[in-house]
Amino acid sequence: MLIKSRLFTPGPTPLLPSAQLAMAAADIHHRTADFRALYSRVLADTQTFIGTKNDVVMFASSGTGAMEAAVSNLTSPGDKVLVVTAGKFGERWKSLASAYGCNVEVVSAEYGKTVEPDAVKAKLTPDVRVVYMQATESSTGVRHDVRGIASLLKGTDTLLVVDAITGLGTTHFDVDGWGIDVIIGGSQKAVMIPPGLAYCSVSERAWKRMETTKNPRFYFDLRKERKNAAKGESSYTPAIALIAALASAFDFIRNMGKGDLAAGRVALVNNAEMCAEMMREAALALKLQLFAPDAPSAAVTSILPPAGVDSGRIVKGFRDEFGAVISNGQGEMKGQIFRMAHLGYFDYMDTIATVGALEQVLGVISLPKHVEFGQGLKAAQEVFARVAGSARNAVASSK
Amino acid sequence: MLIKSRLFTPGPTPLLPSAQLAMAAADIHHRTADFRALYSRVLADTQTFIGTKNDVVMFASSGTGAMEAAVSNLTSPGDKVLVVTAGKFGERWKSLASAYGCNVEVVSAEYGKTVEPDAVKAKLTPDVRVVYMQATESSTGVRHDVRGIASLLKGTDTLLVVDAITGLGTTHFDVDGWGIDVIIGGSQKAVMIPPGLAYCSVSERAWKRMETTKNPRFYFDLRKERKNAAKGESSYTPAIALIAALASAFDFIRNMGKGDLAAGRVALVNNAEMCAEMMREAALALKLQLFAPDAPSAAVTSILPPAGVDSGRIVKGFRDEFGAVISNGQGEMKGQIFRMAHLGYFDYMDTIATVGALEQVLGVISLPKHVEFGQGLKAAQEVFARVAGSARNAVASSK
Repeated sequence: MLIKSRLFTPGPTPLLPSAQLAMAAADIHHRTADFRALYSRVLADTQTFIGTKNDVVMFASSGTGAMEAAVSNLTSPGDKVLVVTAGKFGERWKSLASAYGCNVEVVSAEYGKTVEPDAVKAKLTPDVRVVYMQATESSTGVRHDVRGIASLLKGTDTLLVVDAITGLGTTHFDVDGWGIDVIIGGSQKAVMIPPGLAYCSVSERAWKRMETTKNPRFYFDLRKERKNAAKGESSYTPAIALIAALASAFDFIRNMGKGDLAAGRVALVNNAEMCAEMMREAALALKLQLFAPDAPSAAVTSILPPAGVDSGRIVKGFRDEFGAVISNGQGEMKGQIFRMAHLGYFDYMDTIATVGALEQVLGVISLPKHVEFGQGLKAAQEVFARVAGSARNAVASSK
Repeated sequence: MLIKSRLFTPGPTPLLPSAQLAMAAADIHHRTADFRALYSRVLADTQTFIGTKNDVVMFASSGTGAMEAAVSNLTSPGDKVLVVTAGKFGERWKSLASAYGCNVEVVSAEYGKTVEPDAVKAKLTPDVRVVYMQATESSTGVRHDVRGIASLLKGTDTLLVVDAITGLGTTHFDVDGWGIDVIIGGSQKAVMIPPGLAYCSVSERAWKRMETTKNPRFYFDLRKERKNAAKGESSYTPAIALIAALASAFDFIRNMGKGDLAAGRVALVNNAEMCAEMMREAALALKLQLFAPDAPSAAVTSILPPAGVDSGRIVKGFRDEFGAVISNGQGEMKGQIFRMAHLGYFDYMDTIATVGALEQVLGVISLPKHVEFGQGLKAAQEVFARVAGSARNAVASSK
């Protein structure tokens, strides 16, 4: 049979074709007016995509680079910081803050659960300089309550840093309204281009904090990068092709919003929400358990395999039968869950196809007598029909 | 919502990504050793893809160019030829043969039916110089019995010319064994690249026929092209980028056959057969009628819309809701059928997604009370499970 290679992983995600072409064509030099015009436009679009008036900076790095910047620039050795964690990426904040000599307090929830704002509140003393958290923890598929936690910090001197690497484009944020001081994104996620770019927006009070913090930084120096960004420049050689690709991706998202990038961002989030709901309902109809049923993210859905089955068999089934790469659990969750992504360049047809493939994989490798073909698909179809129907009604009633 | 553009048309078909890149990179001159090596390799691969030992020629043209070559090179004015027709492309043979002054006899079947070999036999007199037919009539979705008709010509002086533009890669042929003198293919079909290349293989007795035929030809001169092809050259400027793309497509098909292009061709046909069967069973489960139930091609499935519904509404539903281009009926069939393609770069996931979209389109625009979501999908799932199960068993028992 013919088998196409497809990614259903929470990053890298499938590449947008127009961005691929833009990347291939990006044969320009970075110390030219052409590049400055491109970069200035991309930075402005990034602001709109994040939904903030705060200045944005960008690094040629993976998302972890911007996470490091949010630690090295905003803390001094010995500073007390609070890390909200319920998975592998929460633990990365802990490692980063420890590496920079912070006094790290942790609020954690078990894998698959979200951290309740009340749990954060209990540990939030006035000497906490920064709270570090994820918007969505892609190792478990959980969404954290960014708004709820942000509201705890109102009127305090504590900064809020949100790793939204898989949250941007899958979660509705009001960055400035809620008071998110730093929010971080990466290129290989909902913006549909390859890895290699990290970006973040930084609030005025976070810029001010940097005037006194003492941790060392050089490549990830936010203030230096901000100064250069204002001129359409980057401090060091930028990832030119990825920036050209990102420009093209923002054009695509703008198109989704009929010429309005902010509206396109909303549409992109709604799309991921719909795909995720299709997948959740399909999994439940196939009598599978969701790993994060209480606060599921729209970026990635984590599903438990049937009892007694290693989730690696599901992952292998997708790869061998369908050329589709889905994710196993990470670290201690390996073998216990499998994860299907919805962030970025996925649509209804991709999602229904993935549900179909899931039925086949389950039917063949684990549940030959339990899966009735069409059950998961029917549930996913009903979600789409309802969501699409509501969208049509909304359009009709606005006319 | 995010909507991807997708083609489900019987040509152009979805482009193979590696062929797209090869096309973009094809910055070479055609009067060089590099091109000659490329072209010679592509011509040899084309032979293997067709499954013939006969020489192959190629034109920068649409498939109709090679059809014209098969008329202008093989006939003289006044020659009696027999055209087998049951659709728009059969009628094209009639127009072509008439344009070149042939005395055209027609054997026809109504749209949606195949032409039975017995009907051909009844009109096959010894003075018929050439029989022209389609392998698959993509305007109706019918497959003709090439083998049955070829067997009627054994031991006669009548040549058999088969337009297999949508037949190659969707039909198993034994070109030399059955005695197909000329078989014609096009680039925008099962070989997964854009339009602009036509190719055909030509038997020794057809080459011999050309020594005496009198119709005029220049651009589509098969003998001139054969002579140049033997040197890795084309008579006129070739479609270089498409030839580079075709080389890449043959590599992909070879990969499907684990390094064996002939095996890959078989796998490609089996894949189309499977996708087509999934679609047929889904349509029937959704209580739709097939337009060509008796002899359906694997290239394209023609389906009647629900009673009282113009098929254009189905086509529009696919386009507006899912960004998917499917085909309406052509000519007099417009509004009466819709057509979904399976030839080339389609896989299980594409097909199951198309069935899902069909359920949604029917549910919304025509059968809100009749479609139960999942019915068509279930039928398609069962086809795949059976076909994939047989394939697995075949592999297991060969070990």
